[in-house]
Amino acid sequence: MPNSRLQMLLRGQNLLGYRHYQDEVVHRFVIKSAENGMDVFRVFDALNDPRNLERAMRSVQDAKDVNPNVHAQGTICYTISPVHTVEGYVKIAGQLLDMGAESIALKDMAALLQPQPAYDIIRGIKEAYGEKTQISVHCHSTTGVTMVSLQKAIEAGADVVDTSISSLSLGPGHNPTESLVAMLEGTEFTTDLDFDELIKIRDHFAKIRPKYAEFESKTLVDTDIFQAQIPGGMLSNMESQLKAQGAGDRIKEVMEEVAKVKAVAGHPPLVTPSSQIVGTQAVFNVLFGPYKRLTGEFADLMLGYYGASLGERDPEVIKIAEEQFKKPLITDRPANHLPPEWDDLKAATEKLPGNDGSEEDVLTYAMFPAVAPGFFETRSEGPKSVAKTEAQLQAEADAKAGAVTGPITYKVSLGGREHSVKVEPA
Amino acid sequence: MPNSRLQMLLRGQNLLGYRHYQDEVVHRFVIKSAENGMDVFRVFDALNDPRNLERAMRSVQDAKDVNPNVHAQGTICYTISPVHTVEGYVKIAGQLLDMGAESIALKDMAALLQPQPAYDIIRGIKEAYGEKTQISVHCHSTTGVTMVSLQKAIEAGADVVDTSISSLSLGPGHNPTESLVAMLEGTEFTTDLDFDELIKIRDHFAKIRPKYAEFESKTLVDTDIFQAQIPGGMLSNMESQLKAQGAGDRIKEVMEEVAKVKAVAGHPPLVTPSSQIVGTQAVFNVLFGPYKRLTGEFADLMLGYYGASLGERDPEVIKIAEEQFKKPLITDRPANHLPPEWDDLKAATEKLPGNDGSEEDVLTYAMFPAVAPGFFETRSEGPKSVAKTEAQLQAEADAKAGAVTGPITYKVSLGGREHSVKVEPA
Repeated sequence: MPNSRLQMLLRGQNLLGYRHYQDEVVHRFVIKSAENGMDVFRVFDALNDPRNLERAMRSVQDAKDVNPNVHAQGTICYTISPVHTVEGYVKIAGQLLDMGAESIALKDMAALLQPQPAYDIIRGIKEAYGEKTQISVHCHSTTGVTMVSLQKAIEAGADVVDTSISSLSLGPGHNPTESLVAMLEGTEFTTDLDFDELIKIRDHFAKIRPKYAEFESKTLVDTDIFQAQIPGGMLSNMESQLKAQGAGDRIKEVMEEVAKVKAVAGHPPLVTPSSQIVGTQAVFNVLFGPYKRLTGEFADLMLGYYGASLGERDPEVIKIAEEQFKKPLITDRPANHLPPEWDDLKAATEKLPGNDGSEEDVLTYAMFPAVAPGFFETRSEGPKSVAKTEAQLQAEADAKAGAVTGPITYKVSLGGREHSVKVEPA
Repeated sequence: MPNSRLQMLLRGQNLLGYRHYQDEVVHRFVIKSAENGMDVFRVFDALNDPRNLERAMRSVQDAKDVNPNVHAQGTICYTISPVHTVEGYVKIAGQLLDMGAESIALKDMAALLQPQPAYDIIRGIKEAYGEKTQISVHCHSTTGVTMVSLQKAIEAGADVVDTSISSLSLGPGHNPTESLVAMLEGTEFTTDLDFDELIKIRDHFAKIRPKYAEFESKTLVDTDIFQAQIPGGMLSNMESQLKAQGAGDRIKEVMEEVAKVKAVAGHPPLVTPSSQIVGTQAVFNVLFGPYKRLTGEFADLMLGYYGASLGERDPEVIKIAEEQFKKPLITDRPANHLPPEWDDLKAATEKLPGNDGSEEDVLTYAMFPAVAPGFFETRSEGPKSVAKTEAQLQAEADAKAGAVTGPITYKVSLGGREHSVKVEPA
């Protein structure tokens, strides 16, 4: 795709992983990505802590030396809480611009962005930093309301909005592209997308999607997140945790507890990983009593190892975390506390069978330490796919229709005598 | 539900059926409905021909004598065509108000109402007939864009919008109620619906819906209708008609033909029954040559027996219809041509076993001549349901898991001898 810019999502100091990486790893990852063709870096931090974005944003600027198309996009994660305000989001946008962001993304991973705040935040950013400030709006569809938020964002001056072709859209995915084109028809924002070309893309992915059906969410619309601030996926996670403890009937208590834990932690947006951290602690609180047992991750969140939340964290629970985990509270940038790790990662990678000695392989291992060894070892076999084949889909359809699709051995009793009978398709 | 107003959709002169009824039947139907508790009558005509609404609207006014809560709502069917304009829709609203409509419904059965025309039509009606003109907006969700249309309609002053509780929403259904509540939060239109009560309703219907799964559409979002003006259901209908004729590969030709036939017929909105009439004629045109063979219904449409289309109908095709069916073109109100039929309907009903001699039974037979006889005959057995029972759903789940759920007879060959073996759940 020589004429298409490639874009990636980069979790700031977390890169593609769930932990903070030391600055050298962050820098090398960004430069290598740009060298290999990555153009637009959408950089975010789950807590919107600008200190977790600094290093990555600087590296993206540096990457322009190896790829002139590189674009640094600073990202705001959207959430709803008593401490999150339109003014606050506008302020974050300013911090990102100061950091060298060439555009701003408003990222609404939980589909919480309602039309009015969508309008107000975009307008606020444009008015504070100039109408030419480029803004992308990224909403998921989960709550069934964000298509309207895109409309209001566009009315407020948003420059880019993210959608999916309809055959891959809706539910926890994005809003459908073709519907957005229809939405804007007759307005001053009419798109010039070619509908016939969109239809081709739609039909292509309509054929692909069934092959990945087992990975699909069954959620079509879920507004619970507005009430309980718990996304559907998180809710079902917590339900299985509770059931495993024989406390499946206490989900309502846990849902109420989540709101309390979120407040104690200073109202972090509930996104991976903060959603899991807060949710699991809420389960622990209900099962064992409030903060009797902390998870290591929740202690780290309270002690500043994920960065600063927008709200104040509860000093008493910070004290409990210090005591339970014998770790000090930190208030500076979390990555300041990380020792150099590149040489260790390199050494570890070079011991793995099948590694090709490249910096890319070290980075792959750093990002995915559990998956990389198997990947290196079997790389020579060529690409693998988790998609079902046409033949598998056909077999499933046959099975659903009641046909025997493979050999089945039955034990059949006939006139008092037991036989072993094998049935298979002719 | 003593404190809830009941609302029904009434197809003007068609009542609940597919043909025009003589005025006395229309009148009796409306009065009896009101007497039995119907409050709000949403009256429409597929062609938006006011002459097809007159009798029904007058009867609704008369019905206030038997039920003081009766409300006459005049309805505009929305479509897109070269002859349909915002001004045209505003004019229809005026005709409905002149007819005694106490409120106006804008009915978008095909999900074609885009946000800009939604805004323009509502604003147009309010400006032409006063801001106090009550307007309901009824959109389906099929094209994925009408949630935004509801937002713009509300901004333009719409008083009521129709939604479905989320567990029954989306696809060819309506937009989700809870999402609409979230959509309006923080705006001047914030609702005062109790979210906790909505959740109870949602959970109730989430349990009911699977029992009717076999009747569900699989369409989640379909924007084809904007292009081909063919709703998904109509398209699959036409595909099976073509396949039955061994011409399954000519669907694209037919889709192009639909637009031509629609123009020839004066651009009627494609709703039941006009969608079927136009679609089938398009198939005939492709298979046998343009207008070589007309369906009886298409001839009637061309000859004015369904009323007047907004656009001019093709005089040449009108002539063909006259010749093929030996029927004259009519230009006055179609129901003027219907002889009295009440006494015949009454006599026919009274011959049916199980009829209870009531006017309601005559009306039931008039509306559903194919279904009513069976209903009368088995009425004493009590209500029937097409819902699957919990047991049936469980059996289906078992079957999906591979279990034998009912007796199955296999032919099994064993040691050269053939046996008939019956397997059933223990």
